[in-house]
Amino acid sequence: MHIAFLGLGIMGQPMVMNLIQAGYTVTVWNRSPHKTTEACTAGAIKAEHPAAAAAGADVVLTMLTDTPDVEAVLFTEETGVSAGVRAGSLVIDMSTINPDDTRVFHQRLSKQGVQMLDAPVSGGDVGAAAGTLSIMVGGDAAAFAKALPIFEILGSRITHVGPSGAGQVIKACNQVCCAVNMVGLCEALALAKASGLDGQVVLDVLSGGAAQSWALEHLGAAIVADNFDPGFMVDLMQKDLGIVLNTSTDAGLSLPGVSLAHQQFGMVQENGAGTSGTQAMIHCYY
Amino acid sequence: MHIAFLGLGIMGQPMVMNLIQAGYTVTVWNRSPHKTTEACTAGAIKAEHPAAAAAGADVVLTMLTDTPDVEAVLFTEETGVSAGVRAGSLVIDMSTINPDDTRVFHQRLSKQGVQMLDAPVSGGDVGAAAGTLSIMVGGDAAAFAKALPIFEILGSRITHVGPSGAGQVIKACNQVCCAVNMVGLCEALALAKASGLDGQVVLDVLSGGAAQSWALEHLGAAIVADNFDPGFMVDLMQKDLGIVLNTSTDAGLSLPGVSLAHQQFGMVQENGAGTSGTQAMIHCYY
Repeated sequence: MHIAFLGLGIMGQPMVMNLIQAGYTVTVWNRSPHKTTEACTAGAIKAEHPAAAAAGADVVLTMLTDTPDVEAVLFTEETGVSAGVRAGSLVIDMSTINPDDTRVFHQRLSKQGVQMLDAPVSGGDVGAAAGTLSIMVGGDAAAFAKALPIFEILGSRITHVGPSGAGQVIKACNQVCCAVNMVGLCEALALAKASGLDGQVVLDVLSGGAAQSWALEHLGAAIVADNFDPGFMVDLMQKDLGIVLNTSTDAGLSLPGVSLAHQQFGMVQENGAGTSGTQAMIHCYY
Repeated sequence: MHIAFLGLGIMGQPMVMNLIQAGYTVTVWNRSPHKTTEACTAGAIKAEHPAAAAAGADVVLTMLTDTPDVEAVLFTEETGVSAGVRAGSLVIDMSTINPDDTRVFHQRLSKQGVQMLDAPVSGGDVGAAAGTLSIMVGGDAAAFAKALPIFEILGSRITHVGPSGAGQVIKACNQVCCAVNMVGLCEALALAKASGLDGQVVLDVLSGGAAQSWALEHLGAAIVADNFDPGFMVDLMQKDLGIVLNTSTDAGLSLPGVSLAHQQFGMVQENGAGTSGTQAMIHCYY
């Protein structure tokens, strides 16, 4: 099986290395061509544009930043995936993008006889390097079955969650929990600090009961240690919350907690800390 | 050691039974006297008022609803604890009340030579019955050491978190996390439902990553099962969030996430579901 991998950023780079090490033949393309060097040194073939990469591939993986990037890589005339991809191939978009646009892309490819899965991930660059990503997959069951061996190289928790777009919706739900829970975590630590309590004691006590969360344990500890290195960047969370708010607005659903989190992260960005981890929201409070 | 236990509500009732079964001599008092029947059948002595209960006790435990209840039970002239308690005794308030008032109560008792600990709990009536409460204790280390054998009957996770009031602050922090995280959980499930996804699939996928929380696993499952029985009642959460907002306002700290959760729970109360569990917040969304 020949794979094309498009988008070798902070996530795509370690993912493609895992596929190469697993023995797959991989053709790579990236907008900034120098980022393909490591993969090519490991045996990947470099393509001039997405159409060329897709031309020889059974499966085309995309790992890009946002909806417009995916649209451009898939559908740019002459150089996009759709200009090169063969009927019978499978496109798997692992980016986190808008669910509605995902469904449109799926339909457009379908007219060429090309199947598509949306398969956004969580677990960050650490999970990408370790091959332990959570992968949330939307699309046809047959396409999922075809893709599963590839997913099993990249991730450790792989779930087929529903039809086209469902993977993106689940990822959006994931980000809702993460973003709003960060508001609660920061407000708890701010209240503790204003009352003269030690943050680590708060985390230790709260981790044993109904307030327990992954964020409390991991990002709470980072806040207390004044460590704002990105596990997941504020700028990317803001992009994802934009997707959530567009999707919910289209559905006639009001999400005031997400709106608040979006505003708080916006303050972090205004203060120049958009490339910090999401735990930098604490600086809205102290 | 002779214990007075004041307040035999949904929490106090199972707690006092555990103390009696552990062999302590216990005098009980409750505002509605009929609630003392079970404890008295098990061997407790019934007192006419808090002063009478406190008169013969080495340790006075209070488990009441709100700050004014604790103030009345401790300081009502002639019948309050302070009218009967002996110098050298220890008062342990296990209610969830305002930290600032707690410190004032501590000082008032101190003038009588009576020590006080604030020791609010989490774990609900299930934890109270099982003797597995989390107990967050503020006050002097010597008083904590004296109380520890009693706490070990009542709870399984006991932490001395700081000086007088610190237990109440930590409990407030706990409620901040629980309340705001509930907003995130409800908004994630609302987004999933609006997009036609199965709620249980969302919970299964999200429980494996950065969105994981105790609430997601336990209260998310209750929402998906349409089970709104109270683990913890909306009305009590609102009381606790009132304490949080008073405390933060006094400290000059703005907590917009808590304010939002307070508003959402307020809507649940307006709709007549104040005695439901906090997961009833989902009805703000669907």
